[in-house]
Amino acid sequence: MKLITTNARKDTLKLASLRTPHRDGQLMVVDRTLQRMVAVPAIARTLQEALDHWGEIEGALEAVYQQLNDDTAARPRRFDPTLLAAPLPRAYQWVDGSAYVNHVELVRRARGAEMPASFWTNPLVYQGGSDDLLGPCDPIEAVSEAHGIDLEAEVAVILDDIAIGTPVSAAPTHIKLLMLVNDVSLRNLIPDELAKGFGFYQGKPATAFSPVAVTPDELGAAWRDSKVHLRLSSHLNGVLLGQPDCGVDMTFSFCDLIAHITKTRRLGAGTILGSGTVSNTDRSQGSACIAEKRMLETLALGAPRTPFLTFGDRVRIEMLGPTGASIFGAIDQLVTPAALHGV
Amino acid sequence: MKLITTNARKDTLKLASLRTPHRDGQLMVVDRTLQRMVAVPAIARTLQEALDHWGEIEGALEAVYQQLNDDTAARPRRFDPTLLAAPLPRAYQWVDGSAYVNHVELVRRARGAEMPASFWTNPLVYQGGSDDLLGPCDPIEAVSEAHGIDLEAEVAVILDDIAIGTPVSAAPTHIKLLMLVNDVSLRNLIPDELAKGFGFYQGKPATAFSPVAVTPDELGAAWRDSKVHLRLSSHLNGVLLGQPDCGVDMTFSFCDLIAHITKTRRLGAGTILGSGTVSNTDRSQGSACIAEKRMLETLALGAPRTPFLTFGDRVRIEMLGPTGASIFGAIDQLVTPAALHGV
Repeated sequence: MKLITTNARKDTLKLASLRTPHRDGQLMVVDRTLQRMVAVPAIARTLQEALDHWGEIEGALEAVYQQLNDDTAARPRRFDPTLLAAPLPRAYQWVDGSAYVNHVELVRRARGAEMPASFWTNPLVYQGGSDDLLGPCDPIEAVSEAHGIDLEAEVAVILDDIAIGTPVSAAPTHIKLLMLVNDVSLRNLIPDELAKGFGFYQGKPATAFSPVAVTPDELGAAWRDSKVHLRLSSHLNGVLLGQPDCGVDMTFSFCDLIAHITKTRRLGAGTILGSGTVSNTDRSQGSACIAEKRMLETLALGAPRTPFLTFGDRVRIEMLGPTGASIFGAIDQLVTPAALHGV
Repeated sequence: MKLITTNARKDTLKLASLRTPHRDGQLMVVDRTLQRMVAVPAIARTLQEALDHWGEIEGALEAVYQQLNDDTAARPRRFDPTLLAAPLPRAYQWVDGSAYVNHVELVRRARGAEMPASFWTNPLVYQGGSDDLLGPCDPIEAVSEAHGIDLEAEVAVILDDIAIGTPVSAAPTHIKLLMLVNDVSLRNLIPDELAKGFGFYQGKPATAFSPVAVTPDELGAAWRDSKVHLRLSSHLNGVLLGQPDCGVDMTFSFCDLIAHITKTRRLGAGTILGSGTVSNTDRSQGSACIAEKRMLETLALGAPRTPFLTFGDRVRIEMLGPTGASIFGAIDQLVTPAALHGV
């Protein structure tokens, strides 16, 4: 008897949040080529609402996505990333891993700190601020250039409800969406902060996200082993900073990280889990943050040469698929002085 | 000419969230004596919605509160804390300070770690998980008694939108509500976690909150200098663990903490800011966590005698006003084995 194998059903979908007077924006379904988008208030008003009821409404969202791709959707509007908030403009949890351990080792060396060997086997995560997540074209508002403003290009996943004690093997189905991240860091505030042991706070201002969030199946064969096997490019003022591959050198997969962060806690739907700054041990493809580049310069030349970001600088983070098309749209941010209290 | 002085208008209000199929529950106004409560869907469906529009709707909520206190509200239901979720069942930020520095010093000593002198002048804060906040009577679900399960009794404030760079002097008006907190900690997981520098994650499972949140004016003269000048009592299985005064020995006021956490970031409405475990240098009133009691036992007797929490233990945290009435209702939790994945 010959076995007939059938492919599992694919869940393909691209979503975004239009900036509106509502703090959570309006959920939009976006077509695969990032040209058209349409609101779906009858299905869900916001992405968080969609995530709260994902199993019930995912099919309806996918039907709209198919219509958009076939150009048969009613009254789509033009996709414009400058009108978008982060896919989740605010979230109930933003936890960021440091899954590219080779990056952690380099940044520590840049700070003159040694990395414990356990970091290769025990994932490092921190909780970031999730009350104020930036849209793809929002400015990086910084109080002072002296803080050492840096980008960190990452991949993140959005999760549904997950039980305590979830093993790696049960984690894959909980990954609902993928995004790109600019985990903005204030390098000169971090050493004192980490020395206190309680994690980052002042050193991590608001984080920015790609225009769209996509289902893992949108990546096709590039999504395997709970890792994204594509390059993530970062540009500074139009010049390539790096385009490391997100699939190689990811010491902990997203499922490894899920098992780690559910050891003693449940996770609520809409939790954002980041990979940490993407980094390759093969240095030929450059870096995904300035700190790493400065460290490599120090090792090669005795001192760093690339300055941290200054007001007026522009950062662009993007990921292209095998055909060269942008999968998530670009994070494209200008560094500006922060709007301070009373000013 | 004689000056006529008028008292500033007082904002008095008690709020809670009834557990419903909706993840954010239903906003309830509760009377001052914690006997009656009523839903206010025409004003706001959830506490987060109220906080998103606080300035516009606070007056309407206070009018209902007055009716409840006068017993003229239409169809109130009986106040029952077992039906309540946390005032914010999930939040966009939960940041916890360690404002009682004398507690930090003791806990560090208990771990054999020295506290840097800067902790007396530079506040310590960590970001906690806010996707899964426990109601006042929800169980403390723990994976293992070997993790060293502990309570931490604290006070927390709920903030509105706050700009970057907000000074201490401008902070008071941003404190909208107060709550009690049980910042559950897994003491035996914390040393390894803090050694990594990225803050708490596995060591801080879900946090629990008091049945009601109240406006600062509800505390009358006991709210001054952005501190609560009342005792916070913690009981273990009906036996008093401690009742330290929250007003003395609070090294950093809530406004000091607000200035610290807005140094490089905006805060979104609904941010929960905790005081850290309440602790007095005068030890006669006991402790607000077991770790501190164990440290004092070690200093006095050479070894700790009080065990951490075990399954079946009950924790009760409450604050009484000058007349002996409970202000926030009680946190009253049973320690139980966690509901694990696949079980």
